[in-house]
Amino acid sequence: MERRQSDGPGQTRRSHGCKQRFETERGGPAIACSLIPISRLLGSESETDQAAHCTDVEERGPRRHPGCWKMLTVAMCVALLGCLQAQELRGHVSVILLGATGDLARKYLWRGLFQLYLDEAGKDYSFSFHGAALTSTKQGQAFIAKVLESLSCPEDVAPDRCSELKGQFQRLSAYRHLATREDYMALSKDIEAQVQRGGLREAGRIFYFSVPPFAYADIARNINSSCRPGPGAWLRVVLEKPFGHDHLSAQQLATELGGFFREEEMYRVDHYLGKQAVAQILPFRDQNRKALDGLWSRHHVERVEIIMKETVDAEGRTSFYEEYGVIRDVLQNHLTEVLTLVAMELPHNISSSESVLQHKLRAFRALRGLQKGSAVLGQYQAYSEQVRREQQKPDSFHSLTPTFAGVLVHMDNLRWEGVPFILMSGKALDERVGYARILFRNQAYCVQNDEHWVADQSRCLPRQIVFYIGHGELGSPAVLVSRNLFRPSLPPESWKELGARPGLRLFGRPLSDFYAYSPVREQDAYSVLISHIFHGRKDSFVTTENLLASWGFWTPLLDGLAHEVPRLYPGGAENGHLLDFEFGGARLCFSQQQPEQLVPGPGPAPMPSGFQVLKARYRESPLISAWPEELIAKLADDIEATAVRAVRRFGAFHLALSGGSSPVPLFQQLATRHYGFPWAHTHLWLVDERCVPLWDPESNFQHLQTHLLQHIRVPYYNIHPMPVHLRQRLCAEEDQGAQTYASEISALVANSSFDLVLLGMGADGHTASLFPQSPSGLDGEQLVVLTESPSRPFQRMSLSLPLINRARKVAVLVMGRVKREITVLVSRVGHEPKKWPISGVLPTSGQLVWYMDYEAFLG
Amino acid sequence: MERRQSDGPGQTRRSHGCKQRFETERGGPAIACSLIPISRLLGSESETDQAAHCTDVEERGPRRHPGCWKMLTVAMCVALLGCLQAQELRGHVSVILLGATGDLARKYLWRGLFQLYLDEAGKDYSFSFHGAALTSTKQGQAFIAKVLESLSCPEDVAPDRCSELKGQFQRLSAYRHLATREDYMALSKDIEAQVQRGGLREAGRIFYFSVPPFAYADIARNINSSCRPGPGAWLRVVLEKPFGHDHLSAQQLATELGGFFREEEMYRVDHYLGKQAVAQILPFRDQNRKALDGLWSRHHVERVEIIMKETVDAEGRTSFYEEYGVIRDVLQNHLTEVLTLVAMELPHNISSSESVLQHKLRAFRALRGLQKGSAVLGQYQAYSEQVRREQQKPDSFHSLTPTFAGVLVHMDNLRWEGVPFILMSGKALDERVGYARILFRNQAYCVQNDEHWVADQSRCLPRQIVFYIGHGELGSPAVLVSRNLFRPSLPPESWKELGARPGLRLFGRPLSDFYAYSPVREQDAYSVLISHIFHGRKDSFVTTENLLASWGFWTPLLDGLAHEVPRLYPGGAENGHLLDFEFGGARLCFSQQQPEQLVPGPGPAPMPSGFQVLKARYRESPLISAWPEELIAKLADDIEATAVRAVRRFGAFHLALSGGSSPVPLFQQLATRHYGFPWAHTHLWLVDERCVPLWDPESNFQHLQTHLLQHIRVPYYNIHPMPVHLRQRLCAEEDQGAQTYASEISALVANSSFDLVLLGMGADGHTASLFPQSPSGLDGEQLVVLTESPSRPFQRMSLSLPLINRARKVAVLVMGRVKREITVLVSRVGHEPKKWPISGVLPTSGQLVWYMDYEAFLG
Repeated sequence: MERRQSDGPGQTRRSHGCKQRFETERGGPAIACSLIPISRLLGSESETDQAAHCTDVEERGPRRHPGCWKMLTVAMCVALLGCLQAQELRGHVSVILLGATGDLARKYLWRGLFQLYLDEAGKDYSFSFHGAALTSTKQGQAFIAKVLESLSCPEDVAPDRCSELKGQFQRLSAYRHLATREDYMALSKDIEAQVQRGGLREAGRIFYFSVPPFAYADIARNINSSCRPGPGAWLRVVLEKPFGHDHLSAQQLATELGGFFREEEMYRVDHYLGKQAVAQILPFRDQNRKALDGLWSRHHVERVEIIMKETVDAEGRTSFYEEYGVIRDVLQNHLTEVLTLVAMELPHNISSSESVLQHKLRAFRALRGLQKGSAVLGQYQAYSEQVRREQQKPDSFHSLTPTFAGVLVHMDNLRWEGVPFILMSGKALDERVGYARILFRNQAYCVQNDEHWVADQSRCLPRQIVFYIGHGELGSPAVLVSRNLFRPSLPPESWKELGARPGLRLFGRPLSDFYAYSPVREQDAYSVLISHIFHGRKDSFVTTENLLASWGFWTPLLDGLAHEVPRLYPGGAENGHLLDFEFGGARLCFSQQQPEQLVPGPGPAPMPSGFQVLKARYRESPLISAWPEELIAKLADDIEATAVRAVRRFGAFHLALSGGSSPVPLFQQLATRHYGFPWAHTHLWLVDERCVPLWDPESNFQHLQTHLLQHIRVPYYNIHPMPVHLRQRLCAEEDQGAQTYASEISALVANSSFDLVLLGMGADGHTASLFPQSPSGLDGEQLVVLTESPSRPFQRMSLSLPLINRARKVAVLVMGRVKREITVLVSRVGHEPKKWPISGVLPTSGQLVWYMDYEAFLG
Repeated sequence: MERRQSDGPGQTRRSHGCKQRFETERGGPAIACSLIPISRLLGSESETDQAAHCTDVEERGPRRHPGCWKMLTVAMCVALLGCLQAQELRGHVSVILLGATGDLARKYLWRGLFQLYLDEAGKDYSFSFHGAALTSTKQGQAFIAKVLESLSCPEDVAPDRCSELKGQFQRLSAYRHLATREDYMALSKDIEAQVQRGGLREAGRIFYFSVPPFAYADIARNINSSCRPGPGAWLRVVLEKPFGHDHLSAQQLATELGGFFREEEMYRVDHYLGKQAVAQILPFRDQNRKALDGLWSRHHVERVEIIMKETVDAEGRTSFYEEYGVIRDVLQNHLTEVLTLVAMELPHNISSSESVLQHKLRAFRALRGLQKGSAVLGQYQAYSEQVRREQQKPDSFHSLTPTFAGVLVHMDNLRWEGVPFILMSGKALDERVGYARILFRNQAYCVQNDEHWVADQSRCLPRQIVFYIGHGELGSPAVLVSRNLFRPSLPPESWKELGARPGLRLFGRPLSDFYAYSPVREQDAYSVLISHIFHGRKDSFVTTENLLASWGFWTPLLDGLAHEVPRLYPGGAENGHLLDFEFGGARLCFSQQQPEQLVPGPGPAPMPSGFQVLKARYRESPLISAWPEELIAKLADDIEATAVRAVRRFGAFHLALSGGSSPVPLFQQLATRHYGFPWAHTHLWLVDERCVPLWDPESNFQHLQTHLLQHIRVPYYNIHPMPVHLRQRLCAEEDQGAQTYASEISALVANSSFDLVLLGMGADGHTASLFPQSPSGLDGEQLVVLTESPSRPFQRMSLSLPLINRARKVAVLVMGRVKREITVLVSRVGHEPKKWPISGVLPTSGQLVWYMDYEAFLG
């Protein structure tokens, strides 16, 4: 059974002519009447369950479920009865296309509406189509007449029949000036009159917003107040992107729209979801579960590429484009939708919109946050000139808007951990093509020389699954599966095997290396989506939650890149390898050195070339100063050297680490670059901790866990979090957490001398969790103390100054311009730990080294 | 400076004509006299340092090291003086080739000795070559005469000069029957007489063992007792593989030889170490440190292939081969040596033999243990027939000796974790070739269509470094580096760039895609090694430690595979894809289904096809029984389902796991197959623990850590090891570990009811660590107890029966034939926990399920 196929208008069908609703005795799905035959009645969701239930009965013998057939029979009879009664009141659907004279309407929407009419005319509904805009009635009418005249039928409609249908469609379509509330009231009245005149019952109204977002609010208000259909008929408003500019604006827009419409009334279009190859991703995964089950994970997938390349540029559209750029225009919506379809856990029942949405949201939650280094940006060279010309900007104007972006996305779940998802889109590239490509890892060794390899037998040839969205060398949507993977199952009524195309190579292999399928009938995405709107299939649209999750993911990156200077590229095939990019860890960078920077603008400060580490003295101890990256690299190297020495001498290395954000890049450096680090013999201690559970995001331990522990292999028993959470309470004196930690240190660390203590310095001169004006921990015999912080969470646990000063080595890491003032101040003060606890750090017999970046040290 | 080049005979050179040794005032390296010029004097290791020191002085100006030139000058003068005195006593070296009439001698060794003579004649030594064997003198003489006659000079020696040298070599070489102790004594006397006659000084004796290993002991004894050179001259014995058959025999052999020779006297040949491309691995890594530093790790390497393919089969050699097989013949030695050269951490100074050896040993320690599933085996079809023919075996004889093996090796260190090292060798394959290939991961996205990719610019084309050992389509040793990696540095005096070879493709790419280098002068491995023996370069040989480490690694696999039936293959190109293999996790398997098994023999028991899970009842509770693999899969599925339900209902899943070996495959299954497992919300508890530190290999927690924890992401604070080790002591009553654990359970687990407790059953009817005849934990109110085990370690901590019985679900896993008896017994007993603690497992309101494999259940 083809689950997703639904050829009736969704819930509409169940109620259009029928007031009676029959609930089953279990309060289960209602079966309502309709004129459509039983077989189609069984097609919709709840009825499918019912039917499956009955099929099940049939197989096992009727005795187990005696009520089933009876129930269905009753429902059918009642349905027929109801429909006979209702037959005289035929349903009427009004479609109001707002922005009917716009580009999108002209290119796609009128065609989609005509297709809807072709599909549904003569079935259960009557239609009227209202092309609305702010243009004068005369101009609007002329425009619409022209558009309607240009419409054509699909090939399988006979010319005579086509012109007949086209005539009908033209008669049902009219232009309408729609601006004020009164206009909307008038429209509503006209629709009601038409319904009454025709002896019809109003089924519903579709408002298609093909207008700029600034117009949304007014229109929405007018619809809500003055143009809602009466009770029993539905309202569907169709929204076109952009749905905001970032998370905040998207939320504002959603809130605003939420004041006028219910969630189920809104249909946000991402036309990629109407592309046939995209729409096939979930059904493909569902129908090939068995084969994919063992393949669809980090153990087998090498990478996923989600790509949309364009040859056109933004000329003529720069007023829009300049505000959005490629990430907002393509990645945040289209490519992200494809990403979630590929990466989400597959629901048991993919025909449940709710279940699909929930799984999509879960996929969003698994996305690792993007950072500035997760993307590379480009801009085709002519772009700024186009903007200047189209928007009358001065010659000095240079745009920073990216027209090309490559982004590396990671998912932090067990299925996808470590698998790179590469999202890329750009204008003025060498070809127009879109695809989602899953490349599997080569986990085979082929014994014979490669000249003997056979495409469908060799596991060493590339193995890939491609959802080919369209264009490119293939020229049509397709689903491609390497023959050395498996023969896929696709619905034969809608997908057919592609014929041979000798000489055609795709993704490095001849087409003949793939099982290749294309749609039996190629459909325009908007036609598909308009049909889905009519049939109430919400799973092809972007819900508010989904939208906000996507903006929540992209907004930090957009913010981080706001002042980034994109790399200029000439456009077309001339781009050569200029835009190729590569990744190591989470960072992305262009493969080729930056050519001469042509765009003046607020680029990043130039970095000194090579490693320059300044050695000096600070408070009579050695000071190492450098740019942040070098500083961290140097500190990590020094820690490793200390560790290796300690392990060689004593068999173990005891390292006490501070919390806060400064050490995070250090943790990352240690986690990814230091192969020789003797982790197996390293004990990790905390310098200080906030009195929150260890799993709290505020916990220092949690930072350590996220950025270091989960990437390395430190034995469990070498990890020593501070016991701030005993007997289910936080830092209670009587639980003696501080004393416990002190005994653990005394027991394991010889002479309680850590091999290395890493400290930071607060802008108020605090270090560890020893704060000015807080008496504890500055002297005395206690090794570990409870202290009070001036900021939340107030309660802290900290190593004491005397314990810190027993260390063999203490490193103080100070980074960022915000530390400049305290750095200057502390350089001048003496030993005043009560005022500036950091000034009390002075190892008795160990060594103290300061690590400061240039901003903290030089300002 | 070319560090490894040494053109004098090692330590010999320093002492051969000179009794005086001059120590520097710092007790540093001695500089001894020699006839060789100063420039060469500076060539050996310690002198190099001295020279470098002086060079350094020169650069900085002489004032800083005033003593250096002076010291060197004195040393030089003294050296010249000493050498003038010693000139009359020229050094003499005797080479005794044992097994001089054998195959190896005929093919390689005589040629190598001749090459040695060519290289060294006219230098500082005189030579005599003794071809020894057990053959009669007449036959031996005839053989040797023939071999000597067939020798030829390298191309760069003029014919006249060649025949002159050949004549000299023939005159210096003689056959010698060498069997008894007296023969050895006579040889020794003859050498001494020759030395005296010639007015020479004996420099040393080389005994080359080209004999079967059973002859080693006698020969060694005779050499040691009767043929050692006098004081001041060295002894070097050269040993040829096989060096034992497994770890034990290798150790015995090593011990035996150790009774006759000192470690530094033994030179174990692995002729792969004399292959030019292999010998170049470390120097290449050293000279290209900068480029390789960022590449030589799991972050960039996709796989390493170490391959030796042969076209010949074992015909004529089956008596040897049948005993050894391909793993012992090729993988344990040649391929393992290459593996360590590729994988080891690079010593700072690769010319230090000691340092290289230590780093090699460290690489061995990082090797993950091999299991039966780590290898695939094959045997060419004609092999058994050849064995039958050559060894007069009956027709019913079928050999299990593999002639083909693919092995997957992993290294458990941060550099290589997760990178597959594929070792493969076989006879009767489609081509003869050997190589070590490092394939780098494609971490780039290339924006243009692949038809625009340029070999030296596109990062998306394969990036690889290949040490091409020889033969194959290239036909010579080579070092290949993809042009999109970097231009390598190789010593220009010994490696030259390869000329163009249009049409030649290697590893999927045209040769022109590589920077390709071949040796300036191709050298036979034995010639290289004989020269190294003469010059005392021990780093090209296998030391005892190295050898035993290698056997220690391979022996468990060999044992595990002893009864494995290899897959038969036809041989040559006809093998097709039959031998291709692939890996998932640590397991290796053939890519194609096993064809009809042609070798009858002790293969594994046939498995029932498909999953067959028997459902029955045992002790009035549900019983699930299946073959081990299915049983584990079923149990893992059930645990996941329970976990998902618990997390949905309660937000957390509390799982208590038993120790022992049975759950290990379960842990592995959960770690690698269960993506949906809600680990982030799972708490892991221990059912029981041995009173050993958590890091003890006996600790149950350590099992859990190794097989489960390190593969999944359970938050640190959800892991609850039993506190058996408090205040640095084990299970002391007064430390109240059991009570602490009980409170932790009470605090975190609602109602102290675990969601699932996994138990095992001992052959004595124990479960958890509740043993018969041990009173504690069977009843009462204690949740956690200390108990006594009948076997070591005696002290245990365990959940009590009452606590176990509070669980919502208890699963008992019983596997293996050894459990059959207790299974039968327990099926019949009532509730007698004092006798059979397992009989006391009866959850109060929860569910009990038994999981038994067929062997435990059906015997």
